[in-house]
Amino acid sequence: MAGPRGEYRKSAERREQILDAAFAVFAKSGYSASSVNEIAKAVGMTQTGVLHHFSGGKMALLRAVLERRDARAEHSLEDLHGRDFLAGLVEISRTQADQRGVVQLYSILAAEATDPEHPARPYFAERFHRIADAVTAAFQEVGADGGLLEGVSPRAAALSTLAIIEGLGLLWLDDLDVDMAEDSRRHINGFLVDPI
Amino acid sequence: MAGPRGEYRKSAERREQILDAAFAVFAKSGYSASSVNEIAKAVGMTQTGVLHHFSGGKMALLRAVLERRDARAEHSLEDLHGRDFLAGLVEISRTQADQRGVVQLYSILAAEATDPEHPARPYFAERFHRIADAVTAAFQEVGADGGLLEGVSPRAAALSTLAIIEGLGLLWLDDLDVDMAEDSRRHINGFLVDPI
Repeated sequence: MAGPRGEYRKSAERREQILDAAFAVFAKSGYSASSVNEIAKAVGMTQTGVLHHFSGGKMALLRAVLERRDARAEHSLEDLHGRDFLAGLVEISRTQADQRGVVQLYSILAAEATDPEHPARPYFAERFHRIADAVTAAFQEVGADGGLLEGVSPRAAALSTLAIIEGLGLLWLDDLDVDMAEDSRRHINGFLVDPI
Repeated sequence: MAGPRGEYRKSAERREQILDAAFAVFAKSGYSASSVNEIAKAVGMTQTGVLHHFSGGKMALLRAVLERRDARAEHSLEDLHGRDFLAGLVEISRTQADQRGVVQLYSILAAEATDPEHPARPYFAERFHRIADAVTAAFQEVGADGGLLEGVSPRAAALSTLAIIEGLGLLWLDDLDVDMAEDSRRHINGFLVDPI
């Protein structure tokens, strides 16, 4: 068993290295200006070698990059509850300010995937519902501790927080004078007795 | 002069009819499932006839549809000020609930156009800045009448309103339990002494 398992581990490591390179290339150049060849060069492989791991080509690389980014973001929130979860959400927005290309690619794919026929539709729809539920739970936890202002519905607060985070990303990409992290924080604080 | 002017008017009317048909087809089917041929049929023309008016094909038709929609929305706000302008913004969100395909196409094009290389980039960036300035002016007018809550900055209120309208559209397209018009109204009311 040692042989195949070793092979498997090596292949998994290779995939991670390719995704690191793809992330850097996409974040710098955006999707249309990036190429599988450039990603291959950045990781010291041939284009064929990269396509062996990601047979779907550039779009498969982009989806894998975004999925890994999502998984990491969700992992960073995993053990957080209530106010800490909401503060964690603000911190995720803060890290995005260094990832223009990736935020842009995410925005395009998220918009394209609203098409019921789009292959990424189930992934994005499920993802939005899952995040909405997690943010709702966090506001409920804050409410259980008496931390929500009078009349605030945890669900409505969660959906509006999610909406503003998405919208701020778009405005930021169009060079409007928004601060994704601080404006999200201010919005969330509009629901809380004590600010985060 | 009567001849050419008549020709011009006829051509302008034809363009409007084509755009009416394109709007209906795009709104029903979305971009990828729509074709110039289908739009031509809907308006009783040949594909060649449509391409005579829109030589850029399907993408040119989409841009013209969205630009006309924008122009109409802006026209509906033109003579409104302060609270009436903000209420008008809510009404625009309300009409979008009947235009799923167009909202979706708008979202995709707006996201794609955040790419500095995209041909629609200047149009969208300029558009966002112009709308942000108009909404800021409306909040300033409300403030001049003493209608803003303590500590509300007109600019920050405008940008967060714009962000939430954009984000609500995306969540709505992904079937989350949002109400674009009422949730926008609630957000705006969070800045006002008296609700709209």
